Amino acid sequence: MTLAQALFAPRAVALIGASGDPAKNSARPFRFLRKHGYAGRIVPINDTRGEVQGERAYRSLADAPGEIDHAFIMTPGDSVERAIEECGARGVPVATIFSDGFADAGAEGAARQGRLIERARSLGVRLLGPNSMGLVDIPGRVALSANAVLEMDGLPAGTTSFVSHSGTMLGTVLSRGAARGLGFAKLVSVGNESDLGVAELVELLAEDADTRVMLLFLETVRDAARLANAARRANAAGKPVVAYKLGRSRLGESLARSHTGALAGEDAALDAYFRDCGIVRVDQLETLIEIPPLLAGRKPPDLSRAPRVAVVTTTGGGAASVVDRLGMAGIETYAPDSASPIIDLTMKATAEQYAATLDGLLGSPDCDAALAVVGSSAQFHPQLAVEPILHSRKSAKPLAAFLTPHAERSLALLARAGVAAFRTPESCADALAAYFAWRSPRTFPAGPVEWPRRLPRRGRLDEAQALELFASLGMPVVEHAIAEAPSFKHAISYPVAAKALSPDILHKTEAGAVRLGIADRAAFDREVRAMLERVPARAVLVQKMESGLAEAIVGYRDDPIVGPIVLVGAGGTLAEIYGDFALRLAPVGEDDAAAMIEKVKGFAMLRGYRGLPRGDLRALAKAVAVVSRLALLPGLPVAEAEINPLMVKADGVVAVDALVAMKE
Amino acid sequence: MTLAQALFAPRAVALIGASGDPAKNSARPFRFLRKHGYAGRIVPINDTRGEVQGERAYRSLADAPGEIDHAFIMTPGDSVERAIEECGARGVPVATIFSDGFADAGAEGAARQGRLIERARSLGVRLLGPNSMGLVDIPGRVALSANAVLEMDGLPAGTTSFVSHSGTMLGTVLSRGAARGLGFAKLVSVGNESDLGVAELVELLAEDADTRVMLLFLETVRDAARLANAARRANAAGKPVVAYKLGRSRLGESLARSHTGALAGEDAALDAYFRDCGIVRVDQLETLIEIPPLLAGRKPPDLSRAPRVAVVTTTGGGAASVVDRLGMAGIETYAPDSASPIIDLTMKATAEQYAATLDGLLGSPDCDAALAVVGSSAQFHPQLAVEPILHSRKSAKPLAAFLTPHAERSLALLARAGVAAFRTPESCADALAAYFAWRSPRTFPAGPVEWPRRLPRRGRLDEAQALELFASLGMPVVEHAIAEAPSFKHAISYPVAAKALSPDILHKTEAGAVRLGIADRAAFDREVRAMLERVPARAVLVQKMESGLAEAIVGYRDDPIVGPIVLVGAGGTLAEIYGDFALRLAPVGEDDAAAMIEKVKGFAMLRGYRGLPRGDLRALAKAVAVVSRLALLPGLPVAEAEINPLMVKADGVVAVDALVAMKE
Repeated sequence: MTLAQALFAPRAVALIGASGDPAKNSARPFRFLRKHGYAGRIVPINDTRGEVQGERAYRSLADAPGEIDHAFIMTPGDSVERAIEECGARGVPVATIFSDGFADAGAEGAARQGRLIERARSLGVRLLGPNSMGLVDIPGRVALSANAVLEMDGLPAGTTSFVSHSGTMLGTVLSRGAARGLGFAKLVSVGNESDLGVAELVELLAEDADTRVMLLFLETVRDAARLANAARRANAAGKPVVAYKLGRSRLGESLARSHTGALAGEDAALDAYFRDCGIVRVDQLETLIEIPPLLAGRKPPDLSRAPRVAVVTTTGGGAASVVDRLGMAGIETYAPDSASPIIDLTMKATAEQYAATLDGLLGSPDCDAALAVVGSSAQFHPQLAVEPILHSRKSAKPLAAFLTPHAERSLALLARAGVAAFRTPESCADALAAYFAWRSPRTFPAGPVEWPRRLPRRGRLDEAQALELFASLGMPVVEHAIAEAPSFKHAISYPVAAKALSPDILHKTEAGAVRLGIADRAAFDREVRAMLERVPARAVLVQKMESGLAEAIVGYRDDPIVGPIVLVGAGGTLAEIYGDFALRLAPVGEDDAAAMIEKVKGFAMLRGYRGLPRGDLRALAKAVAVVSRLALLPGLPVAEAEINPLMVKADGVVAVDALVAMKE
Repeated sequence: MTLAQALFAPRAVALIGASGDPAKNSARPFRFLRKHGYAGRIVPINDTRGEVQGERAYRSLADAPGEIDHAFIMTPGDSVERAIEECGARGVPVATIFSDGFADAGAEGAARQGRLIERARSLGVRLLGPNSMGLVDIPGRVALSANAVLEMDGLPAGTTSFVSHSGTMLGTVLSRGAARGLGFAKLVSVGNESDLGVAELVELLAEDADTRVMLLFLETVRDAARLANAARRANAAGKPVVAYKLGRSRLGESLARSHTGALAGEDAALDAYFRDCGIVRVDQLETLIEIPPLLAGRKPPDLSRAPRVAVVTTTGGGAASVVDRLGMAGIETYAPDSASPIIDLTMKATAEQYAATLDGLLGSPDCDAALAVVGSSAQFHPQLAVEPILHSRKSAKPLAAFLTPHAERSLALLARAGVAAFRTPESCADALAAYFAWRSPRTFPAGPVEWPRRLPRRGRLDEAQALELFASLGMPVVEHAIAEAPSFKHAISYPVAAKALSPDILHKTEAGAVRLGIADRAAFDREVRAMLERVPARAVLVQKMESGLAEAIVGYRDDPIVGPIVLVGAGGTLAEIYGDFALRLAPVGEDDAAAMIEKVKGFAMLRGYRGLPRGDLRALAKAVAVVSRLALLPGLPVAEAEINPLMVKADGVVAVDALVAMKE
């Protein structure tokens, strides 16, 4: 019996804490398993009743007959621990814990969860949860969940699987999908992920014959490296992975933290992570439900120019509501022989002509996707309204439909034909934008890189050491020297900058530990004397004064959620004030670094804006790649590092200020 | 018979071009009028048949008996003109033109429309359209439209009215509203607005007893001044006006232009316009449909701090999807006695406790709105799931609900109780953000302002004239003088800047017509000689060199769509590269100008960012108010004007460079 079988296709399920009162939530799994045709044995465990909903119940798992593949635990408090002991004793390979009060309930609960999972490991019991709503395998007829959505008659089967941190969302996607004819294969609520987590489920689903597309509803990412690998496997298996992740705002982040006990992570870092892992990220909740037919069987488009969508419509206003948003996402339209950005077919075309138009558009190398917008007729004449779209040939390029009225039958017809159909202009545009932003999982430059022997491996490097580290990686650094007491001699030609040399002064400018543009030796002596009266240092870093066409900031961080990342942003305060920076998982090659630089608006000044002289963006890209190679140091000793500013010149770049903080 | 009566409550309607073939679109209005219980006379006009759908038809309007209050014209091509002639001859006060091929079809159609409306005016016939889908008055049982949505049985009556540039959208809002129990009063498709436009309809609806909230679907704004006044009247009548406007992206703008033949206008200017007119602007299409109960009977909140929403929920994941987006809109949550940003009531509260919690929250002065998020139970136990919300008392503060599953019955229950209920987290957050951004129509500072007599009233002012104009309005301007050939004498102390004085050199820096930081007289003579060899000018503007803590740009424009607007942005290139500016209708007072300045991120540098010295933002606000007073010049002679840069100092501001272009 494999893990996947015990999880999704158990031959017998024990319902620990199954209630005899049908009004209780803990009575639901029994009812739902029966209602949706579970073919295996159901074994209710109830310590006060001998019968539950007409089925013989047992006082404890120990009393229950036969082999049990999966236990569903609903009992409160300490009894969860007892149930796991019993699972271990009976050789139950998987337990889903519906009970809450663990890591979802503060530090004490987290400690309790730690003890629970330790014990389960030693007993050889795999856990889903705690705080899991359970799971559903629709083609396999296993509705092992307490979610009220399972009151519905006839669960819609499909080829999309869903993994969620939120148990409620199982009901959300299932009920909303069902209302428009979109079905599912497997749905799993992972709860607190004490053991079985999102990453391992993606691994299982990558091997699952029923699954073509995977959807993730994420409050956090707990095992980024494993999920990255799992996504890579899914990609190799031709199965797109789509994520909706909370915590995009600071408020959302603090909520995710309070709700799941997990670090939420910086959203921009997660965005880079999803992209580099080949995971499609959607912005709107319903996009998650509606996007699968757009992606199923398709590959990342990896376009080298702005994407173009052909919009065919019988309603100008309806089409405009999508086109407006496509434009906001940087997507262009393709409309040959039309004075307008859309192709208007109002009341002129037969179904065959309409379909031929769509096929012709999708056949053009200048067109990357087609969108059919249908007006009021979709509500009362669904067959007539969407037939032309159904007639269109399958293409490697996506075909999407947006229906302006409330038109569930039309949505269902399109769903049945595998055409992506959208209820709102926003989710339609969001899905197309997410599709075009989809990239194949990235390959990373190889290492390793060596740590310069002379440099310490702990604490914070001083600025001279930091410059030396970057120089050793291949970064052009400012000409500099260390001037020591008592003479403070140095060989740098004037004008120079002087900085008190100490890793302990964090805000050097504010502390008066930096002087720029010192014109000559006399001024230098005067400034250094004054400086060392203000700050505790015994040496001074002397640097040649440098200037450039613009300043950049290049940073590196070993992010607690996604691991090493590299950042490039417009210098001065622009990166911070305007959030004008680009992030990628580190390391990056020069081409990826160049693509990052293109995303930074402030570098417009270096790209020939208003006739200004052009900066050496190739050298900047090289510098970004160099900094990102900190991720290739064995053991990842660097916590964070930054060059700020990096002067970008017409020919080359130079690092003027550097900061490196080690983990220990 | 008033215009409103003829339009919405005609005693007899002539259907010109009514088809006898029920499959044709032109057969629909007859059928729909009948189907939805029109109580007046229907008079089909058909030049080939004596009978249409069982009703006696007439060859022309001239043959039809009795008084006709409203003609609905569906005939193609030139026959529209003939129909209008007949309306004039018969004294029909209003004609709705369904036929297209006018301003919606290029320059020739626009000319044809011009002739048509001129003729209609002289005949005393008011026009709706051309290219109008018609109108519906649900309480009055007048379904005078060809929109297929009217196939539905039983139109949902309510107190929301809708005015749309797009005919399709009548069906969109009606069908989507009906599916969740949201009803409407009047719905009007204005088409090309040759005569009756959005503004006049808002005037009529402000007087309409059935209408409590007005929704606008806009592709453009054709009569901004009249609409502003109409919105003010609606506001005075306690009727919120909500707009969804296309053309937010350049692509959307070009589509609106091609689709309606109208200028779309710069979106930021329209945004300022809606805000200053007291019109609520929504971002997502469904928000338009779902927001009315949130606004009905309420006033603009006009908060002086960040808005706070109390989020009460039984589902953490569902609430998080809204809260995350609220955070993105700068909205905070209010959760007393909770470690989390939300108030979790999972399975603990009775209906009464839940309602009491909501009432308590809404009663707090620290809470500005409440949101109840309901999970899967909303689908199959609607009464149980939403009852607690229905028990809550009516408050001056809005109460909203978001339901995570597909739950139409729950939505309808909430709608019936007047509680704003949302299908998606995005429209829910959008509606709350739109509500909090809602302001009362702004009052404008009074004028007039006088034009300085010495200045020309045409063309482009030279820089000295432009500085003089701004100085006359009260702007501190740089100390300057005009130095003329042959001596180029001046009394400004060095260092100075020199600029060739000519209104014809547009890009002075690129043309080599500006020299900064000239140190002394000798350098001045040298620079001026060289400059006047490069550019055609006979005099030089000499200015004292000024510097400040930061630069600002302050601009004025008489926008072709919304009229005079004033802009303030971060100087240098930031306003352009980052879109970092704020706009308002001009003129503004100093307090409104201060609020604009707060919106500009780049001014962080002047607000004490990282310990930098603070700039005189009050003086900047005064400068913005001064520039905006160009809108008080009689006849609005200035097309555009700009001070760039305005130097902002620790104490005061000074205009260093100015540009003024007149309309003629």
